[in-house]
Amino acid sequence: MNSTSSHKSIRKFKSTELTKSQIEKMATAATRASNTGNMQLYSMILTTDDVIKEQLAPCHYNQPCVKSAPLIVTFCADINRFSLWCEQRDAEPAYDNFCWFTTATIDTMIAAQNFALEAEEQGLGICYLGTTIYNAKEICSILNLPKGVIPITTIVVGEPDESPDLTDRLPLEAVVHWQTYSDYTPSSINQLWSEKESLESTKRLISENDTENLAQIFTTKRYKKDDNISISLKYFDTLIEQGFFNNK
Amino acid sequence: MNSTSSHKSIRKFKSTELTKSQIEKMATAATRASNTGNMQLYSMILTTDDVIKEQLAPCHYNQPCVKSAPLIVTFCADINRFSLWCEQRDAEPAYDNFCWFTTATIDTMIAAQNFALEAEEQGLGICYLGTTIYNAKEICSILNLPKGVIPITTIVVGEPDESPDLTDRLPLEAVVHWQTYSDYTPSSINQLWSEKESLESTKRLISENDTENLAQIFTTKRYKKDDNISISLKYFDTLIEQGFFNNK
Repeated sequence: MNSTSSHKSIRKFKSTELTKSQIEKMATAATRASNTGNMQLYSMILTTDDVIKEQLAPCHYNQPCVKSAPLIVTFCADINRFSLWCEQRDAEPAYDNFCWFTTATIDTMIAAQNFALEAEEQGLGICYLGTTIYNAKEICSILNLPKGVIPITTIVVGEPDESPDLTDRLPLEAVVHWQTYSDYTPSSINQLWSEKESLESTKRLISENDTENLAQIFTTKRYKKDDNISISLKYFDTLIEQGFFNNK
Repeated sequence: MNSTSSHKSIRKFKSTELTKSQIEKMATAATRASNTGNMQLYSMILTTDDVIKEQLAPCHYNQPCVKSAPLIVTFCADINRFSLWCEQRDAEPAYDNFCWFTTATIDTMIAAQNFALEAEEQGLGICYLGTTIYNAKEICSILNLPKGVIPITTIVVGEPDESPDLTDRLPLEAVVHWQTYSDYTPSSINQLWSEKESLESTKRLISENDTENLAQIFTTKRYKKDDNISISLKYFDTLIEQGFFNNK
């Protein structure tokens, strides 16, 4: 099984530092990824310094891996570098808008996943931190991100010190549509979720969370309405502040 | 060289159809990717039908590969399926907001890149179509995307009928920052772009485009201010219409 099909998130790491050569191979793989117009509208902030890790940890709700992983990579959409180059060449850049926020986010993610897969090819473990957009504003300040640069995701990288099982997935037909989108029916929803809902691990989760079912764990415990809305407003404000919403 | 470092965009394809097993392997690799809370907030629309390809082609400015590639995959952020499941389980979903647009986009792109790399592992060629967000509104209509589903990117897939060279990249230090972001100076910008600007292919491009330099090709020919702004407004409107900007 190659690394595209064998991913497991790793959150416990050995303290072994990564070598310069390991890191360069991962970063190079990131840059070899597809990207729009070969503009490379992303930056990778590689953090190995304990002081900066300490500062980043609360942005990721103090998940222990932020301090224990030897390498933290914050992937950012970056129109700053390209715009500076344009200005210096008597060309007027106009990439400070939502079109280029989205485009740069797409390119940043393709690069991030190449980085992650190259790490896994090397036998290293990684975990994505979705918390990056929750506290993007604070991360901008800690990492000195100028206007034109906004955090999109983070991965922690290191030698695995755990070996979790593959996690379950919905059946392939849940996420694949042929030719055009076929919307779901109550009975197809029941069928697509039936395996997941009957797992022992799901039953345990429901009991631990004291909810009626798995869906309620998501809506009442993990990703709640008030949090979703406040994160939405905060991240959108950060996007404006970092210069990605100029419509003039 | 493994596939994370050997990507070349392929736009010319043999007419050989892909087998069900090839397609399932790529789609499975996509689903094995990291994703937030294992919610799988994406859908892949696999188009092999010539009629639908014809309809999609103008959305991608009639790039010939949209009609000639045996498989077109439109990757969409999808909160529809998960929300339907929640509603059916007496759980109130609240994922129709910008936080989850961004999160689902991130997860969609991780899945897309796994799909792309698995295709390349199989000896197939791919090309990402950044035009997906330019005409997302029309794509929604062609692919019957309901509220809660929005196109993020497209890849065309097939057996390569060309063998292009690796394209150039900026030096690694252009996109890598250690510990925190080091902003660029006029002299670092000159240095980082010097190799790219001195390529024969760059000189040819400048002469063909009749501009003073490479940067002006981007700002006056390829990605112009008026286009950037109109795409921004149109995609943001589509995002609202598809139900990703509810702040209440």
